[in-house]
Amino acid sequence: MDLASIIGILLAFGLILGAILTAPGASLSAFVDYPSIMVVVGGAIAAAMMCFPLKRIIGTPMVTKKVFLNKPENVPKLIEQLVSLAETARRDGLLALESRLDDIDNQFVALGIQMAVDGTRPEVVEDIMRTEMDAVATRHRDGKAVLDQLGRFAPAFGMIGTLMGLIIMLGNMSDPSSIGAGMAVALITTLYGAIVSNAIFLPFAEKLGFINKQELLSMEIIVRGVMAIQSGENPRVIEQKLNTFVPPKQRPKDKEAA
Amino acid sequence: MDLASIIGILLAFGLILGAILTAPGASLSAFVDYPSIMVVVGGAIAAAMMCFPLKRIIGTPMVTKKVFLNKPENVPKLIEQLVSLAETARRDGLLALESRLDDIDNQFVALGIQMAVDGTRPEVVEDIMRTEMDAVATRHRDGKAVLDQLGRFAPAFGMIGTLMGLIIMLGNMSDPSSIGAGMAVALITTLYGAIVSNAIFLPFAEKLGFINKQELLSMEIIVRGVMAIQSGENPRVIEQKLNTFVPPKQRPKDKEAA
Amino acid sequence: MDLASIIGILLAFGLILGAILTAPGASLSAFVDYPSIMVVVGGAIAAAMMCFPLKRIIGTPMVTKKVFLNKPENVPKLIEQLVSLAETARRDGLLALESRLDDIDNQFVALGIQMAVDGTRPEVVEDIMRTEMDAVATRHRDGKAVLDQLGRFAPAFGMIGTLMGLIIMLGNMSDPSSIGAGMAVALITTLYGAIVSNAIFLPFAEKLGFINKQELLSMEIIVRGVMAIQSGENPRVIEQKLNTFVPPKQRPKDKEAA
Amino acid sequence: MDLASIIGILLAFGLILGAILTAPGASLSAFVDYPSIMVVVGGAIAAAMMCFPLKRIIGTPMVTKKVFLNKPENVPKLIEQLVSLAETARRDGLLALESRLDDIDNQFVALGIQMAVDGTRPEVVEDIMRTEMDAVATRHRDGKAVLDQLGRFAPAFGMIGTLMGLIIMLGNMSDPSSIGAGMAVALITTLYGAIVSNAIFLPFAEKLGFINKQELLSMEIIVRGVMAIQSGENPRVIEQKLNTFVPPKQRPKDKEAA
Amino acid sequence: MDLASIIGILLAFGLILGAILTAPGASLSAFVDYPSIMVVVGGAIAAAMMCFPLKRIIGTPMVTKKVFLNKPENVPKLIEQLVSLAETARRDGLLALESRLDDIDNQFVALGIQMAVDGTRPEVVEDIMRTEMDAVATRHRDGKAVLDQLGRFAPAFGMIGTLMGLIIMLGNMSDPSSIGAGMAVALITTLYGAIVSNAIFLPFAEKLGFINKQELLSMEIIVRGVMAIQSGENPRVIEQKLNTFVPPKQRPKDKEAA
Repeated sequence: MDLASIIGILLAFGLILGAILTAPGASLSAFVDYPSIMVVVGGAIAAAMMCFPLKRIIGTPMVTKKVFLNKPENVPKLIEQLVSLAETARRDGLLALESRLDDIDNQFVALGIQMAVDGTRPEVVEDIMRTEMDAVATRHRDGKAVLDQLGRFAPAFGMIGTLMGLIIMLGNMSDPSSIGAGMAVALITTLYGAIVSNAIFLPFAEKLGFINKQELLSMEIIVRGVMAIQSGENPRVIEQKLNTFVPPKQRPKDKEAA
Repeated sequence: MDLASIIGILLAFGLILGAILTAPGASLSAFVDYPSIMVVVGGAIAAAMMCFPLKRIIGTPMVTKKVFLNKPENVPKLIEQLVSLAETARRDGLLALESRLDDIDNQFVALGIQMAVDGTRPEVVEDIMRTEMDAVATRHRDGKAVLDQLGRFAPAFGMIGTLMGLIIMLGNMSDPSSIGAGMAVALITTLYGAIVSNAIFLPFAEKLGFINKQELLSMEIIVRGVMAIQSGENPRVIEQKLNTFVPPKQRPKDKEAA
Repeated sequence: MDLASIIGILLAFGLILGAILTAPGASLSAFVDYPSIMVVVGGAIAAAMMCFPLKRIIGTPMVTKKVFLNKPENVPKLIEQLVSLAETARRDGLLALESRLDDIDNQFVALGIQMAVDGTRPEVVEDIMRTEMDAVATRHRDGKAVLDQLGRFAPAFGMIGTLMGLIIMLGNMSDPSSIGAGMAVALITTLYGAIVSNAIFLPFAEKLGFINKQELLSMEIIVRGVMAIQSGENPRVIEQKLNTFVPPKQRPKDKEAA
Repeated sequence: MDLASIIGILLAFGLILGAILTAPGASLSAFVDYPSIMVVVGGAIAAAMMCFPLKRIIGTPMVTKKVFLNKPENVPKLIEQLVSLAETARRDGLLALESRLDDIDNQFVALGIQMAVDGTRPEVVEDIMRTEMDAVATRHRDGKAVLDQLGRFAPAFGMIGTLMGLIIMLGNMSDPSSIGAGMAVALITTLYGAIVSNAIFLPFAEKLGFINKQELLSMEIIVRGVMAIQSGENPRVIEQKLNTFVPPKQRPKDKEAA
Repeated sequence: MDLASIIGILLAFGLILGAILTAPGASLSAFVDYPSIMVVVGGAIAAAMMCFPLKRIIGTPMVTKKVFLNKPENVPKLIEQLVSLAETARRDGLLALESRLDDIDNQFVALGIQMAVDGTRPEVVEDIMRTEMDAVATRHRDGKAVLDQLGRFAPAFGMIGTLMGLIIMLGNMSDPSSIGAGMAVALITTLYGAIVSNAIFLPFAEKLGFINKQELLSMEIIVRGVMAIQSGENPRVIEQKLNTFVPPKQRPKDKEAA
């Protein structure tokens, strides 16, 4: 669960709703206009479809789920596990790791250890793990790119909707008293464009970029750990090396290691 | 057929048309103004002509067709074919590939295999294939650059048209009741600029950039495959190497390969 | 104390307040609207929460304190101290530095010297010090990134607030005399967005970036100094080397050194 | 003659003029205001003068002529000539090239061949030719930079002019009927800024950047050709090497070469 | 004297003044509002103070003087002098340069030659000269950065001022006849922001960046020249090498050199 994303989106929409409900003379119904939502959100999605292949557009909701469900890897604990696996491998041989495979939650650690147990050559292990890393990075970057384009086109279609509304209103100015209402409706698409872009698409794209960087760091640590385990390095040295990826305060016991 | 581009452009214009037709008091005729289209689209094309040589401007529609007609290469199948060619070459010699040339759909694979069969030196084969790759990349980048400039200048000429309309209207304000209509006409060029830029030029430019990246990846795989076939490498090793370009899930049987 | 930040923020808000108080017909109360502050500042914080993990958002005020409390390292004096430590080490051995540890104010120098005294291997000393540098750089870059996003989203939520205000006002235009007042209220969120972005978030982000660069320079000098002390280099040579980081005018006596 | 530039600028201004002349109630005279032209164009030039040294500003019209008069090098013909020179040099010695110097149109080829005939050392020949290339690149980049700044400052001074016009008009609102006319005049500078920037300065800057890239490619081919001629390489090999710079379709006979 | 900067700033302000004075119904006094100047210029300076340390803000006027007083180095003459010094050094030894030190205007040449005469080791000479170069580059880059930020914040505070003016005016709309005057005053800060940014801060920043590049080029030539003199290279070779930094047309006699 990514608490910040959940609090953030509730807070953003809560503030907008609260401002509408507490404003004198305002009613929520004045802010709900389904055709306007269609033009802004539909238009942004249409533009994004022209930018990317269909498969990527369809995959975007799946990728976006990460914004809320992302559970960051506990890096110190991950290093601890790798070191413990290294100790087992050193003491009892690589094959002894097979019995520990069931305890490994992280699929990527399991993949690497499984290959090491199978006797796969180190170059092939590293190659396969790095290709998997690239695939994860590409999937995230793709998701981020779609959200970035949505965040760029939503305000544009908001402006398109407002211009259409203004042209309709100005062409029907026989009844001057209706100008205000017409203008209010015209502005709604600009408002929708600003809200979906700034309270949904753009922040989501930023978070995906952030999650991507974090996940790749964990995977880098795992690749180095598995390679070191396979080459039979000293568990203390492995721990010291992997800990350089962690800020000093989070390192369990780097004093002794030194 | 690029389904996403077709759905995207139909959706974008469908939403805009739908919004106009369902809006109370709106008529489609109020949104069609041929001189305004001339100023916005013509002006953007004029500016693009000043940016590039004539040949590129004329070639742009051809390149743009790719946005709709692009059929992405089936990469796993492509690798399969290259591996199968490698098997033939290994078993029966490079010359045996001649009989299989007719089965090869991909022109770029055919070019490489033909040269290998002809006994062209490997350096020359690679040089010619890479130059062809560069030419494809340049052609796409050129098409993308023209669309990017069109997407940048269309809103600018939309604004120029609106300013001209406002100046004409404001200079004729003897009849205040006509202000609304004049303003409506003036805003149409801004609307056109926003629509052609955000629903056509900019998304098309993005798609071309995307197609370019994909096509170059396939060509890179082909170059490596042909070079490996010519040097008589083991088909299993070739398969394993080429598969590193494919995300694990799409790899047919990388487990065994390992 | 960063005098420039304090003078700058007092000057910016003083000028804004002064302009309001001296303007004929203006009252400060017309510029204070709590719901508007909530929408702009709360909305910007909500968007930033969607961009980053909770821990970073919570750490931002701590990092921001640096904008005011930052005391730049006195680099010439720092070099002088490192050279003096080098002299002691050269004359009386590394262990003699232990007695001088209490005089060292800079925690980072103390960390390095302590490790040198403890006989930690040079590679480990450098590795630990550089990781600490990276951690400091990351912490600052993180703080700057949050402020950058706040400075980007605050004007966006200011615009969202104004659009909501305009829609409410235009929908209630039965009483034309109230238009002015309604518009004034609507514009307040745009004003708040512009002020918090340009007088707080963006300049703070710039200053953090600047402080970060300065601090990393000092730390680089310290790492090089400690490494040179540990390897027992000639104090004159150490001085000459470290002084290349300082502009000539600030160097105490580079003529003689040459 | 760069046809695209000429058609482009005629089309852009033709469309603008046509729109004005065909609009009901519009007169060309309403769009001509000399003081406004002075503020926008003069202001942009003034700002550009503050950005660059006087010599560069004065040289800009000369560089800009290239936008219309540029005649792209015929690259396949250039390669043919270099190969023909290589054949002569191979058959009859470097000195035999002297008799062919008069046939060489391209000054840069002539410079290189002259030096080769004179027996200048190869390193010096390459050095002098590359410095000449750098000088050409710098001259073009300088011209582009001035046009880029003009294209950036013209809309800014257009806005400055409009703000001045609005302030004058609003300060004289005793006669409400004159508002429209005053506003029309005020908007003219914004219109001028948009036109000169988007229909002149920015497209010209893009074209100069494009011409620069093309010219440097030709010069690169010439440098490589001259160096190869001087070192007495086989004309066939020279042709094959230089043709890698040309897209396959434009290559005269690369099949045979292979 | 940088003539272009002086003509540029006089032209920009002359055009603005001229447009105001010749406009019918305009008076200069309508364009002078001291509180508005305070908000825009003071606000931009306040924001810049929050971005940088106090020392840099205070040094900005000194750096900005360069925009007007900069006298570009005469590069061909500089090279001539270095070659002449090289001839003396070659003929009569390095110590003979001491008698010529008084003739050297350029402080940076004098610094290098003095060190060479003093017998300073070449590495130290180069190190000191390069550090001086870095210091000059940093000082200029710092000045440019402050001006860039001023040019970015001035329009922002212009908009803040206008929003404040509009809110005050709209809140006092009891007297509709005063709207025009109130709006005129409100727009003045936007005008000031546009003028100081586009006619002062941004062009000045560009010029400083330009001067910096030129000055570093001269210093690079001097460093290479001094190093070559100290190592006793042939004056002809030194001339030929240094001239590669100059476009061919400005080279005095490169034909013979070849």
